[in-house]
Amino acid sequence: MFLFNPIGFVESPYKESSEIPKGLGVKHDAEGVLKVLPEFELGLVDVDGFSHLFVIWAFDRITGFDLTACPPSDNRPHGVFATRSPRRPNPIGLTVVQLLGRDHVRLHVRGVDMLDGTPILDIKPYLSSVPQETLRRGWLAEAEARKA
Amino acid sequence: MFLFNPIGFVESPYKESSEIPKGLGVKHDAEGVLKVLPEFELGLVDVDGFSHLFVIWAFDRITGFDLTACPPSDNRPHGVFATRSPRRPNPIGLTVVQLLGRDHVRLHVRGVDMLDGTPILDIKPYLSSVPQETLRRGWLAEAEARKA
Repeated sequence: MFLFNPIGFVESPYKESSEIPKGLGVKHDAEGVLKVLPEFELGLVDVDGFSHLFVIWAFDRITGFDLTACPPSDNRPHGVFATRSPRRPNPIGLTVVQLLGRDHVRLHVRGVDMLDGTPILDIKPYLSSVPQETLRRGWLAEAEARKA
Repeated sequence: MFLFNPIGFVESPYKESSEIPKGLGVKHDAEGVLKVLPEFELGLVDVDGFSHLFVIWAFDRITGFDLTACPPSDNRPHGVFATRSPRRPNPIGLTVVQLLGRDHVRLHVRGVDMLDGTPILDIKPYLSSVPQETLRRGWLAEAEARKA
């Protein structure tokens, strides 16, 4: 059993889950701020040099989970681990954001898909490793093809 | 405060942290298994269609953290959130693995950099979004250039 405390909170334009763009081909270009708690400011040194960051966060307004999910991008159910459904056994979210700039403990970013006030658990540099041409996108590619 | 329980455990060839390849240009191609607990098997339906997965896991053999870290890929300290150091405020690890195949609750994968027995917190499909040419890699690119 693991116990985590927030290292900061997201400032997002989204106050309600219904406002967050979802579904096939959706682009997340909303801007927001990752506001890190003052005691962790030293941990942000040199973050500025990266164009993109992983943000690991908690779905703090979700209770319970389902083993299958019908994502907005498809009308068929899939195993929850094959989706980004918030109703997961451990309600952990993962978002890749573009870093626009840092002002002390405030990281200005593009690409937030979290609700305002979402607790941040960790921030890591994004270092892509997987060449685009070796990537298979499972049911999502099929769902896209069906809608095309 | 968030409480997470493992959804499974990693079977890895690495028994000790010193055995895990580290540093600049290292390639993680070790094979291993993500063994999901039987009660979550239904959550794996359709995972098979993805070539790569995100694995979110816990550094369960680490206590304490540092706000700066000297990664093996550089001899200069950086803020912990600009590194993948295990000594983080929340000891959460993130690995992209290639899925080789699934046998019920066992996901055979390539690219493990976790220790044997590492608790898995979540699995998500990997859907790359960031074009290679827009990526900046901060101090890591500099450290690579210094060693080249």
